[in-house]
Amino acid sequence: MGKKSEKKSKKGAKSKKRRDSAPLVRIGVVDTMFARYDMGQAARDELAACAGYGDTFTVIARTVPGFKDLAVAAKNLIERDGCSIVVALGMPGKAPIDKQCAHEAAQGLMLAQLLTSTPILEVFVHEDEADDPKILASVFENRSRKHARNAYWMLFEPEQLRRRAGQGVRQGFEDAGPLTLR
Amino acid sequence: MGKKSEKKSKKGAKSKKRRDSAPLVRIGVVDTMFARYDMGQAARDELAACAGYGDTFTVIARTVPGFKDLAVAAKNLIERDGCSIVVALGMPGKAPIDKQCAHEAAQGLMLAQLLTSTPILEVFVHEDEADDPKILASVFENRSRKHARNAYWMLFEPEQLRRRAGQGVRQGFEDAGPLTLR
Amino acid sequence: MGKKSEKKSKKGAKSKKRRDSAPLVRIGVVDTMFARYDMGQAARDELAACAGYGDTFTVIARTVPGFKDLAVAAKNLIERDGCSIVVALGMPGKAPIDKQCAHEAAQGLMLAQLLTSTPILEVFVHEDEADDPKILASVFENRSRKHARNAYWMLFEPEQLRRRAGQGVRQGFEDAGPLTLR
Amino acid sequence: MGKKSEKKSKKGAKSKKRRDSAPLVRIGVVDTMFARYDMGQAARDELAACAGYGDTFTVIARTVPGFKDLAVAAKNLIERDGCSIVVALGMPGKAPIDKQCAHEAAQGLMLAQLLTSTPILEVFVHEDEADDPKILASVFENRSRKHARNAYWMLFEPEQLRRRAGQGVRQGFEDAGPLTLR
Amino acid sequence: MGKKSEKKSKKGAKSKKRRDSAPLVRIGVVDTMFARYDMGQAARDELAACAGYGDTFTVIARTVPGFKDLAVAAKNLIERDGCSIVVALGMPGKAPIDKQCAHEAAQGLMLAQLLTSTPILEVFVHEDEADDPKILASVFENRSRKHARNAYWMLFEPEQLRRRAGQGVRQGFEDAGPLTLR
Repeated sequence: MGKKSEKKSKKGAKSKKRRDSAPLVRIGVVDTMFARYDMGQAARDELAACAGYGDTFTVIARTVPGFKDLAVAAKNLIERDGCSIVVALGMPGKAPIDKQCAHEAAQGLMLAQLLTSTPILEVFVHEDEADDPKILASVFENRSRKHARNAYWMLFEPEQLRRRAGQGVRQGFEDAGPLTLR
Repeated sequence: MGKKSEKKSKKGAKSKKRRDSAPLVRIGVVDTMFARYDMGQAARDELAACAGYGDTFTVIARTVPGFKDLAVAAKNLIERDGCSIVVALGMPGKAPIDKQCAHEAAQGLMLAQLLTSTPILEVFVHEDEADDPKILASVFENRSRKHARNAYWMLFEPEQLRRRAGQGVRQGFEDAGPLTLR
Repeated sequence: MGKKSEKKSKKGAKSKKRRDSAPLVRIGVVDTMFARYDMGQAARDELAACAGYGDTFTVIARTVPGFKDLAVAAKNLIERDGCSIVVALGMPGKAPIDKQCAHEAAQGLMLAQLLTSTPILEVFVHEDEADDPKILASVFENRSRKHARNAYWMLFEPEQLRRRAGQGVRQGFEDAGPLTLR
Repeated sequence: MGKKSEKKSKKGAKSKKRRDSAPLVRIGVVDTMFARYDMGQAARDELAACAGYGDTFTVIARTVPGFKDLAVAAKNLIERDGCSIVVALGMPGKAPIDKQCAHEAAQGLMLAQLLTSTPILEVFVHEDEADDPKILASVFENRSRKHARNAYWMLFEPEQLRRRAGQGVRQGFEDAGPLTLR
Repeated sequence: MGKKSEKKSKKGAKSKKRRDSAPLVRIGVVDTMFARYDMGQAARDELAACAGYGDTFTVIARTVPGFKDLAVAAKNLIERDGCSIVVALGMPGKAPIDKQCAHEAAQGLMLAQLLTSTPILEVFVHEDEADDPKILASVFENRSRKHARNAYWMLFEPEQLRRRAGQGVRQGFEDAGPLTLR
């Protein structure tokens, strides 16, 4: 991780234009037509606000029909497009069959990670997590952004994760916090 | 994707007959004897109506006994027959055991995608999605056609998918649309 | 598929004994000690009645303890014994744990297919599909035979499958037929 | 299978000590600390009573913490220790979460078989198969022994399995027998 | 296993500093921000108390967002960081969807083990295993430590496991002990 930006620095002395011409680390963002909120936009907005955006790293975006199509798209973002991590966003519906499909989609994302040895952050918002559309929209926005930030941390600031180990950190809703022992 | 048609254009100068003789992009369509509607025909009809049919791309069709046989057939359409994407169509029955079999069939299609790094669009119509046979038939026809169109878009017009990201697009029934926030 | 029989014809001119000495296409049949009906015998009987039996193709049979042992046995029939397709026959019992085991066995058969790119027809008769042992026996016999015939068709007469696409074809019980739209 | 013992016979003429020095076929036995009965001992006892024990074949034993650790241990018994078959023994507990863990453990054993193309006999005794500890102990003993015997048969006497095809053979409890048709 | 420490001893004669400079066996510990207890700390504390810590073996630690991210992180600890075994710690929440996610996470850990042929000890504490936070904390602490110890035993003292085979050993709560037969 961060390998490409290291290479870049070595080449730095040779060229003033290195920031423009050297290959950037790539973060993949894949979303669906099926979801009822533009989760990919939220994730891309968050990444655009991270340090080094467009300079150290860039974002490659794809849209697929539904969440079962995310896994192979994420795998191709890694293998063909050279992404170092992928944020995969989808919305399982309310019906029982949707739950089963979400399970299959999640298994696919797990397998894609293991076949590529590359993290893919699964960002699923279940349509029935909230009845109020405004609350649901805030879950979509918050979870998509938080996981996009996690992807950035995993590549560039792993100490952010280490210092939060076991702290009951959540995405979409409030943090649960660590166990209260008294 | 679209690689074969690119090769074709390079050869274009050498031969007036290139449209007939050059290799076309291939879209696979695999369906079952088990389903109670000719889903493969619907998918092929839709593809035949897409721009470039028979010229830029062609369709390879297979029929297998049941939906559990779709995955390996789709994999072979990709690996042996050179398809760039596959539409896999099946109808899970009403009994609980059918639900479990559908789950296994879907896992197989997921795995086949990841082993080939090629999208396979799962088009399943559950026999109990509607009681009225006419409504059910329209679900069969609509979902098969919509996913065939999605396959075409994924190969040739990915911007069609990107512009519909997060819009609650559905196949088989009406689009759900994006969340209504007021 | 059918590759071996093609090789045979090329050698045909050289020897009158080619039918006896040339390698035949192989169909694998694997069954279990656990099942309460000799499903393997039914499948082998059906194959013995297919055109070309012993001449164009032959049958290789194996028996394993239970249905969870079918997958690796089928894989070895393909990889070590050169089978071009396998019919895998088993009987899940009545208890809830049997259902879960059947699921695992089916996942194994799916994976074995995808790892070998070769079809394995799963022929499972659930012990609780009928209370009357005579009816259950007829399900065992009919489903085992029908899927053995499907295996034969897949190798030698794929047009038999194509012409039945979407026709609600069943094994074990009566065909459901296509949707009745009026 | 049995390859190593064949090699041994060829070398037989050269050395009187061949029984001691030639490589034996290896049967792996892996069990857990979690189980409440020494299933591995039962399996090893049964194998020690099989013809050729210590002469044609030998047993390699491993113990892991729980049943989810069986799969990778069995895979290593095959790949690193050269076992031709493995008997994997474990006891899923009574709680619902134990059932799910058993499912994951069983999926792992299935995958380990398919990745190695080598049979691994899953011998699971569920803690709630009997309330009476004496009956449960007899299930542990009987099933562990019967599957150890099956492993032996699969390597050295496959005709024992073939002749019992479809006979409703069980391990742990009484055989169910074939369907009674009158 | 223990290979690296063997290499070290061979080099021993050449350098007085071998304990500092030779490569140590590595045990990976991966935990999550999601968990409400610092499970990784408990595991690392236990390993630090094992014989040879810092001398024969060392510990490599990683933190990921949630338990679904453990599998690929564990795989990379093995493949990129050279760990001989990994302890993967997480806390599935109380909601039904959390159970399904835990299942997917566990399947990923299983697959990661089989793809690397290396043990990964899954240490999951379910948030609903106890209502009292103090009891739950003790489960977190105890299970994390016991499995860290198991990892150490698997690498350096396998006889500790063998002697406890079938003894109903548990982590988190009291040992169940072997079946009481009278």
